[in-house]
Amino acid sequence: MINVSIVGVSGYIGKMLYALCCNHPSIESVNTYASMNLDTTLHQLFPEMVGVLPDSSIQGMETFTSNSDLSFFCLPHGHSLAFIPSLLKSGKKVIDLSGDFRLDTPQLYDTWYGFNHTATALLKEKIYGLADWPDSAYSGQPLIANPGCYPTAVLLSLLPIVTSLQDSIIAISTVAYSGTSGAGKAAKQELLLSEMDGNVRAYSVNTHRHEIEIAQQLKKQGYGGPFAFIAHLLPLSHGIYATSTVHFSAPVDQKMIDVAYKNAYAATPFVRMRPVPPHLKWVVNTNFCDMSAAACGNRVVVTAAIDNLIKGGAGQAIQNMNRMFHLSPATGLHQLSRFSR
Amino acid sequence: MINVSIVGVSGYIGKMLYALCCNHPSIESVNTYASMNLDTTLHQLFPEMVGVLPDSSIQGMETFTSNSDLSFFCLPHGHSLAFIPSLLKSGKKVIDLSGDFRLDTPQLYDTWYGFNHTATALLKEKIYGLADWPDSAYSGQPLIANPGCYPTAVLLSLLPIVTSLQDSIIAISTVAYSGTSGAGKAAKQELLLSEMDGNVRAYSVNTHRHEIEIAQQLKKQGYGGPFAFIAHLLPLSHGIYATSTVHFSAPVDQKMIDVAYKNAYAATPFVRMRPVPPHLKWVVNTNFCDMSAAACGNRVVVTAAIDNLIKGGAGQAIQNMNRMFHLSPATGLHQLSRFSR
Amino acid sequence: MINVSIVGVSGYIGKMLYALCCNHPSIESVNTYASMNLDTTLHQLFPEMVGVLPDSSIQGMETFTSNSDLSFFCLPHGHSLAFIPSLLKSGKKVIDLSGDFRLDTPQLYDTWYGFNHTATALLKEKIYGLADWPDSAYSGQPLIANPGCYPTAVLLSLLPIVTSLQDSIIAISTVAYSGTSGAGKAAKQELLLSEMDGNVRAYSVNTHRHEIEIAQQLKKQGYGGPFAFIAHLLPLSHGIYATSTVHFSAPVDQKMIDVAYKNAYAATPFVRMRPVPPHLKWVVNTNFCDMSAAACGNRVVVTAAIDNLIKGGAGQAIQNMNRMFHLSPATGLHQLSRFSR
Amino acid sequence: MINVSIVGVSGYIGKMLYALCCNHPSIESVNTYASMNLDTTLHQLFPEMVGVLPDSSIQGMETFTSNSDLSFFCLPHGHSLAFIPSLLKSGKKVIDLSGDFRLDTPQLYDTWYGFNHTATALLKEKIYGLADWPDSAYSGQPLIANPGCYPTAVLLSLLPIVTSLQDSIIAISTVAYSGTSGAGKAAKQELLLSEMDGNVRAYSVNTHRHEIEIAQQLKKQGYGGPFAFIAHLLPLSHGIYATSTVHFSAPVDQKMIDVAYKNAYAATPFVRMRPVPPHLKWVVNTNFCDMSAAACGNRVVVTAAIDNLIKGGAGQAIQNMNRMFHLSPATGLHQLSRFSR
Repeated sequence: MINVSIVGVSGYIGKMLYALCCNHPSIESVNTYASMNLDTTLHQLFPEMVGVLPDSSIQGMETFTSNSDLSFFCLPHGHSLAFIPSLLKSGKKVIDLSGDFRLDTPQLYDTWYGFNHTATALLKEKIYGLADWPDSAYSGQPLIANPGCYPTAVLLSLLPIVTSLQDSIIAISTVAYSGTSGAGKAAKQELLLSEMDGNVRAYSVNTHRHEIEIAQQLKKQGYGGPFAFIAHLLPLSHGIYATSTVHFSAPVDQKMIDVAYKNAYAATPFVRMRPVPPHLKWVVNTNFCDMSAAACGNRVVVTAAIDNLIKGGAGQAIQNMNRMFHLSPATGLHQLSRFSR
Repeated sequence: MINVSIVGVSGYIGKMLYALCCNHPSIESVNTYASMNLDTTLHQLFPEMVGVLPDSSIQGMETFTSNSDLSFFCLPHGHSLAFIPSLLKSGKKVIDLSGDFRLDTPQLYDTWYGFNHTATALLKEKIYGLADWPDSAYSGQPLIANPGCYPTAVLLSLLPIVTSLQDSIIAISTVAYSGTSGAGKAAKQELLLSEMDGNVRAYSVNTHRHEIEIAQQLKKQGYGGPFAFIAHLLPLSHGIYATSTVHFSAPVDQKMIDVAYKNAYAATPFVRMRPVPPHLKWVVNTNFCDMSAAACGNRVVVTAAIDNLIKGGAGQAIQNMNRMFHLSPATGLHQLSRFSR
Repeated sequence: MINVSIVGVSGYIGKMLYALCCNHPSIESVNTYASMNLDTTLHQLFPEMVGVLPDSSIQGMETFTSNSDLSFFCLPHGHSLAFIPSLLKSGKKVIDLSGDFRLDTPQLYDTWYGFNHTATALLKEKIYGLADWPDSAYSGQPLIANPGCYPTAVLLSLLPIVTSLQDSIIAISTVAYSGTSGAGKAAKQELLLSEMDGNVRAYSVNTHRHEIEIAQQLKKQGYGGPFAFIAHLLPLSHGIYATSTVHFSAPVDQKMIDVAYKNAYAATPFVRMRPVPPHLKWVVNTNFCDMSAAACGNRVVVTAAIDNLIKGGAGQAIQNMNRMFHLSPATGLHQLSRFSR
Repeated sequence: MINVSIVGVSGYIGKMLYALCCNHPSIESVNTYASMNLDTTLHQLFPEMVGVLPDSSIQGMETFTSNSDLSFFCLPHGHSLAFIPSLLKSGKKVIDLSGDFRLDTPQLYDTWYGFNHTATALLKEKIYGLADWPDSAYSGQPLIANPGCYPTAVLLSLLPIVTSLQDSIIAISTVAYSGTSGAGKAAKQELLLSEMDGNVRAYSVNTHRHEIEIAQQLKKQGYGGPFAFIAHLLPLSHGIYATSTVHFSAPVDQKMIDVAYKNAYAATPFVRMRPVPPHLKWVVNTNFCDMSAAACGNRVVVTAAIDNLIKGGAGQAIQNMNRMFHLSPATGLHQLSRFSR
């Protein structure tokens, strides 16, 4: 049995991770922390948990001296860096859900995150945990960087094509739309319902940190050509819908595409290939990534839908934990979807 | 182990009931029927079920010769009447989720439903299954009428007061708002997102069938004074929010109110009394009824929130089934809420 | 021609008032102020105004020395009090859109607003500007208190009944639902789209300041019996829907009700009586109050819909200005609705 | 003064067109038709028009013998074809808001619309009325095909680049999201609020008729390279947000891009170039197209927002009428936006 800590439990991903941990058959105890001392319990902060999940006091980070086997970090970018190296030194495992270890080189942190990375060796040693993508690289590393929400949907959409057809790709363009929970729970005027109801907008065009994260992984798999990723906000709370257009130098065969996706995701129960573009609703409140890849002439259009906080956050983190502890990939996750709408 | 049939599985309540039955530890098999022959399977009709719930062909009603121990009817009003009497005669059990057996006298069907009731003896023999309300009347009757969605929320709100303070009540007014799923899945122009987005409206003022259903139960508990129930549509899909104002002839004591509710719902895990008005979101995707009762001078304001398809439909039906088969009240229902948002 | 100032232009009501003033044929110039020095122009703050309305710098209140003929105050409660008395002394006119002058006695401010009112004489001298209600009291007073958004809808709903049938009323209960813009533009976690999407909740039960404001006016018109007003938040930005149930001691005649409303609102173009409950959408972006009053036995149910920022704020303020300056009641308001949806 | 007919007034675009015609200073009378005899008046069908716009009976198409100077057709695709040729022969003018004359060759109708075009000469003679794009081709032709809603946003986004930089373009990908009103007012289950609330989905991938319409115009302006257009549905009623990524073979200069857009739209008041991606809300209820074009390395990202029923329908149709009758381009359109939110 595993003892875990959730650091940053008061946010949207932290809350979902708590629910998943409480329902995980191999987790024995869950310690919960928030970056600020909230002087409250989980039931006070989340009244919907009463009668559903156990209550627990939320501890301030000043008391964090984790003896847990595994710590999940759900802090704002730049904050986990201060805690993780010492945890690893003391032999503990860490799954970081922030961006602090997703990129491979410290220079990229200067450019894209605007801070000086102080644990550069770990950038090489960590595993980038795109859990549904077959990856032989994992061999017990104690630090997994959980992918960003957008990169999860976009990489699952593109990797089967990029790895099989990279030479004939001319250009890739991805447009993704996210619910507002992806922007976090802090009060901001621009995220008020009064501002976002009936509204849609692109943001961070040409500067979104998830673009470099995706590009880095595409390059590792052999594609360094033209790529663009544009993020947008939707007037709903949960979910990401990502649409990728891949232009090729020659006609593409639908059957070949079907095979590429089928093979890539044969081993995971959490990718559902669809004959038509998925509805976002099919995946909200689940750990699924639903996708459709449609070839037409010299192009392929891939549509993908995920729950940004689950498959793009807490659910994938549990998959990564299962991998760390040699558990079956779906342990603790199947019941999640049973009553989804 | 129990074999069940769901008649009307293609609608919103039928679908949720299927999910609940598939996850119920005492249910062995589920047969699914729709009023029309849809020539489709559940997975084709509900792609979100793939990988989550077992597939099954949906049978047309012309093939319905149920050998199931229990049949759930989720048909439009006036349709279950044709099937239920013969099922009961052959010794089977029935839970009807339509309005066909909720009222006690045939005359009320003429007036409020506009049809001539042909199984009048059953109106007396059936049990009105308000599952969370303590009821000593149940002694094995094979027909339970599942309450309407609004009456579930409103009766749970009012009965503790009505049973303890009826003599000093001057008037009761209830205003309830429901998500559009309560109006069913049939295509109607007035329920298009284009029409209902950013919209709200009262409907069936002075003629809503749920008003007589509520009034009938209040009267049985001793209150026949002024009462009004006004239904409204919300621009969201799931949930009911009911606000009841009870005016008294004398000041009301908050402590007395607190005790009345506490005692009434001591035995059920599905009513959560709250110190502040509940958020609708706390109960969506759950079987809970969250309530707050606030006294002030000569009045009490009760706010209640439920999921109209679960507590106001499929979830309560499972509670009624558990009662019929002498199972623990929450069997098959606890896991439902574990990941609610 | 009139020179006006808008104090508090950066909020939702202030913005709409600016649009109305710019389109008003008798207004010559508009000065705009915000409570804090925002160091911005209207076009920077509201990019949607570009090409539509003239730009203007927004001045901080420290520079406010209004020479305007009329000042509109749209500040948070308790703030206009500091400016209005001296303006009036210098012979200027004021329309206050906050609650600072709506109540008639200073004691009520202690109890309901929690501050000590320092301009108590003005509480008597001001006019309560329910613009569509026939009122012979206005004879040139320079201070008008613009009604609250909820009281506007509720008083228009109830006054025709209260003034004609008050003796046979047993109890009145009003439940109203408002879009989130009524809660203002300040960033608050509980008003994020992530929190309010798909959500509904009652708030300030038994303590809402608009309840005493309504009760005060009902009492002036002769009704001091049981009354309750319960406010709720909707998952949409604009609009109020108010449902009032009036219980009587004897049956009520629909024709009598129809006549009462028809007579009451014969003179205003902004009240539309409807044979069925209005849709909120019919009035959003307009200055209309749409209503339906349905008698049934011993009760009447009145449903009313308004735009909370227009009829419940800026639009009614223009009506009050028109009255102050002896202009036709609808001056500057008719074009507002021409393209409403 | 002009007499006009609106054929298909009962739909979303027809209704908005009626409002615009009633407020147009050069229009004297408006006749209204619907494809079916609705036996109703405009006020009965659209209660929100009472007190705002004049009532009028809606005539069935069997009575259509237009003596109007100009007829607007807002019928479903394939229906205007039966009426327009004879109208033109009798010397009347026509603006068609369906797709029946947007494409240039009859073969494309076989392929993309699935019907045999019977007025092929008119396909050459008509003008494609992208009203904000400088076009010297118009010289009094009596038939204007009003562009599709998506093509309006996408062509305004791409033409300035395509006409100035076509030789260095590698590939163009456009992803657009539309409110549900674009799918019309007919009752369809998949467009119910219960289905679309909290939902998003791509549709008609690789088969959307607006893709060939856009590609046709791009080709006329000299670009026939890789292009993809993917349409999606949003959970809101009004508006289109289109995001286009243009990949180039060499770095692109932001200043050059700025100049290209500035020059292209110098003459129209209805295109607003923005330094940041527009918010959809800025343009809803207006005739504006708000755009932002951001260069970065070898790519340009263009974001554009319009109201699908106004700039993408009725508003643009009025611009085209103004052109036909030698009126100033914005006649009858400026007041539309004055109170937009």
